[in-house]
Amino acid sequence: MTKNYKLKIAYDGTRYSGWERQPGKDTIQGKLETVFTRMIGAPKEAAGHEDQGGVEIIGAGRTDAGVHARGAVANMHIDTDFSEEEIRDYANHYLPDDIAVISVKEASDRFHARYNAKGRSYVYTIFDGPVKPIFNRKYYTRLELGKDSDTGKYKELDVDAMNEGARYLIGEHDFKSFCGNPHMKKSTVRTVDVCEVRRSKGYVYLNIHGTGFLQHMVRIIAGTLMEVGLHRMEPAQVGEILEAKDRKVAGPTAPAEGLTFMSVDY
Amino acid sequence: MTKNYKLKIAYDGTRYSGWERQPGKDTIQGKLETVFTRMIGAPKEAAGHEDQGGVEIIGAGRTDAGVHARGAVANMHIDTDFSEEEIRDYANHYLPDDIAVISVKEASDRFHARYNAKGRSYVYTIFDGPVKPIFNRKYYTRLELGKDSDTGKYKELDVDAMNEGARYLIGEHDFKSFCGNPHMKKSTVRTVDVCEVRRSKGYVYLNIHGTGFLQHMVRIIAGTLMEVGLHRMEPAQVGEILEAKDRKVAGPTAPAEGLTFMSVDY
Repeated sequence: MTKNYKLKIAYDGTRYSGWERQPGKDTIQGKLETVFTRMIGAPKEAAGHEDQGGVEIIGAGRTDAGVHARGAVANMHIDTDFSEEEIRDYANHYLPDDIAVISVKEASDRFHARYNAKGRSYVYTIFDGPVKPIFNRKYYTRLELGKDSDTGKYKELDVDAMNEGARYLIGEHDFKSFCGNPHMKKSTVRTVDVCEVRRSKGYVYLNIHGTGFLQHMVRIIAGTLMEVGLHRMEPAQVGEILEAKDRKVAGPTAPAEGLTFMSVDY
Repeated sequence: MTKNYKLKIAYDGTRYSGWERQPGKDTIQGKLETVFTRMIGAPKEAAGHEDQGGVEIIGAGRTDAGVHARGAVANMHIDTDFSEEEIRDYANHYLPDDIAVISVKEASDRFHARYNAKGRSYVYTIFDGPVKPIFNRKYYTRLELGKDSDTGKYKELDVDAMNEGARYLIGEHDFKSFCGNPHMKKSTVRTVDVCEVRRSKGYVYLNIHGTGFLQHMVRIIAGTLMEVGLHRMEPAQVGEILEAKDRKVAGPTAPAEGLTFMSVDY
């Protein structure tokens, strides 16, 4: 009997072309579909195609190439005799060492990882201190700011200014200026309820939570707030950028490596 | 004027042929000597050769290919106008992103990172839980132990047994059985004052501190204690292995990736 399973997934996105399955490319969805299609004994070519007997994974959100996840959520309808734990263990045994299935839980038949998601949270991590951390170097964006020639002190992001700018983004807004897809036809209105920056041990973390995010939205927000933190933009400009509804006035898209998809709530 | 500098260094050893400089190979010492030789304006070929005007780095201990360090210590005699901080920042700017100089401090002329070291500490990290951690996957050794067919529970290393075995190693002993170099001519007597195993969040850590270590010694100890933790050896056998003074009776050399050189005391 076919059951619907909810999966919690972690991945290091460094060597992947993002979440979404693409022919001839290594993607997270592609790897998962391949492993689970093998698990149910369907032919390799059916992976990603439920109508051909393969496994199709529905993700809560697509991530770009190079973006990481600690708590991505997906679901899949499969017919298997394996227990939840056995499904998880099978996946972790056959998945590459940079993708892990953290948990597998049977869900109601109607559970849909994308449509039912009420909120998503991301963390964007920056390191702006003088001594680069090496062990987690693939998971943050490094800013080498050097010393201030007047004070002789190491320059660092102005977190207070970043938070002042971040506050303009909280609420329901048209985030067109923060959308990386210039051909977006659908609504670019989204609700962000948490957008805050904090500093801890040389790292600067941007925590963001909202109902949903446009393509590159978190990275453009991070890139814009970095401009504010570097005093290249005033905090109030973030409000003006929102109003402009024009991608060209926002800051650059911050590098993918600093972004981690943290969790999804239902 | 030539000064003696003490360096604290961190590295991810994954892609290196160990600490020691070797022609044509990427090594930690080699990378450091190249960068500092460049810093003082000496020709590239002089790196590692003080007598040719290059910089020679004296490390507190050599690590094998694939072994990591969080607090390795070295010293070098150089003539530079740079401040301690400038030396550190120069190095971190030009070193690859998997090696970092954490600090640079002027030391007395007679300070020698190897001869003056009174103790060294290492951590060997094992993960034996069912869900593989992915972000730090290069820094632990994974044991996939599966489930016990009788109890249906996930098997895990017996940390109490490992600690019972570890206690035999504490004190001054001839560690010949734990020496990876079969041609070792010098004394194989060493003193280990800390050797303990603890479990935390699915990881098993072997903490070891001693005056000095033979080639592969920590990894052979880890490999032997893993045999004990898997109940393939009795804890008391560790004492017998010591007495045998024969590498063949000890456990296997545990993989390099799980080992991290933590600190040196003077």
